[in-house]
Amino acid sequence: MTPVALYLIPNVVAEDALHTLSPQALAVLPDLRFFLAEDVRTARRFLSSLKVYSAIEGLNFQRLDKDTTYSDLNEIMQPLHEGHSMGVISESGCPGVADPGALAVRWAHAHQVRVVPLVGPSSLLLALMASGLNGQKFAFHGYLPIEGQEAARKIRELERESAAKGQTQIMIETPYRNANLFQNLIKNLSAHTRLCIAMDLSGKSEWVRTQTVEEWRKHVTPWPKTPAVFLFLADS
Amino acid sequence: MTPVALYLIPNVVAEDALHTLSPQALAVLPDLRFFLAEDVRTARRFLSSLKVYSAIEGLNFQRLDKDTTYSDLNEIMQPLHEGHSMGVISESGCPGVADPGALAVRWAHAHQVRVVPLVGPSSLLLALMASGLNGQKFAFHGYLPIEGQEAARKIRELERESAAKGQTQIMIETPYRNANLFQNLIKNLSAHTRLCIAMDLSGKSEWVRTQTVEEWRKHVTPWPKTPAVFLFLADS
Repeated sequence: MTPVALYLIPNVVAEDALHTLSPQALAVLPDLRFFLAEDVRTARRFLSSLKVYSAIEGLNFQRLDKDTTYSDLNEIMQPLHEGHSMGVISESGCPGVADPGALAVRWAHAHQVRVVPLVGPSSLLLALMASGLNGQKFAFHGYLPIEGQEAARKIRELERESAAKGQTQIMIETPYRNANLFQNLIKNLSAHTRLCIAMDLSGKSEWVRTQTVEEWRKHVTPWPKTPAVFLFLADS
Repeated sequence: MTPVALYLIPNVVAEDALHTLSPQALAVLPDLRFFLAEDVRTARRFLSSLKVYSAIEGLNFQRLDKDTTYSDLNEIMQPLHEGHSMGVISESGCPGVADPGALAVRWAHAHQVRVVPLVGPSSLLLALMASGLNGQKFAFHGYLPIEGQEAARKIRELERESAAKGQTQIMIETPYRNANLFQNLIKNLSAHTRLCIAMDLSGKSEWVRTQTVEEWRKHVTPWPKTPAVFLFLADS
């Protein structure tokens, strides 16, 4: 018998992009019956779309979201104690990256449960690859403050750090605030800083562009409400 | 006709792990005849192992390594000018991440060539997922200084930054120096800092362990010369 493990199962990052999932991840699924997910309904729909189960009614789901506490996990992880492997499914991309999945992984390490990360799409990684910015040094900062002065202060701080270390700075925003973050970036970054915007990665409207802030300022267009990753690297 | 593009083609990160490559990446390859690679011989062997070409003799390879300069690219990228798409292949994992591929991507953006990142394995991302450390804020620093005092200074600086920002610090080392980096880390980090070591990701001897530095200090074992990623998160 295979020893129990916690499998980290990547989800697609664009609609209908099942061709971005690895055979490695798909091969693990048929043996799994117990899952953790941020949203049980969408996780169920995702697993159903993969057509690896004859019926998904027999699968068990537990909620793991931003409100889950570490002490909740003793109950949530019960199937592992009973000898069943479990899978963590992200709402988008890789569990544990910009996502609450890390809490379950932390619990697994503390309880000597093997953790197995499976290969799949990550919009952060795809954006970094496609940016042409420094991939030898980079940092992900999540969401920046969105309010004017606080945003300006943070963006300038990250730009100074980028120049000092040669570090690519990566951030995300909820789609309806993309335009807002974009305006904050082109207003507060230096003219020669290279800014990349990567939208709908691996999707039908995938679009990636890196140019200087000076160039971005010339073409301010209406901003679609598409998932996007923003990256910049200061001129050093 | 599809417009020309620069495709970023992930390579495996463990031997024989072809099941970690996405159908998305494999679907693109049959239409590509022009490639950039750090090492032409291993890139040729990699493409051959995929069995997507009836013969690999007709494929064209250009070298793109750490010694390639931006001005070299005008000649290297010539096929794009002639209407041929090109692919960048990494020696391991994703082009443009801890790898010289970003230079070609930079050139493509400067010349209005579409850049298409394809999904595949990245040991850095797999390590972050499997670490259970903070995946909402993280930074990759490449190689740390290996000499005693300089190494100590850098590790302490990264630990202070980790505590202040809640940022997971990620680094790599060449396999024959793994033991050296490990000793530097457990010597210089605080007892309660959580340290993750992720070895041979997606390979047959995959092994991931996160525990406090205090716990690591108790079990100092001989260190295999296996590719590894090191990550830590300071107690905040």
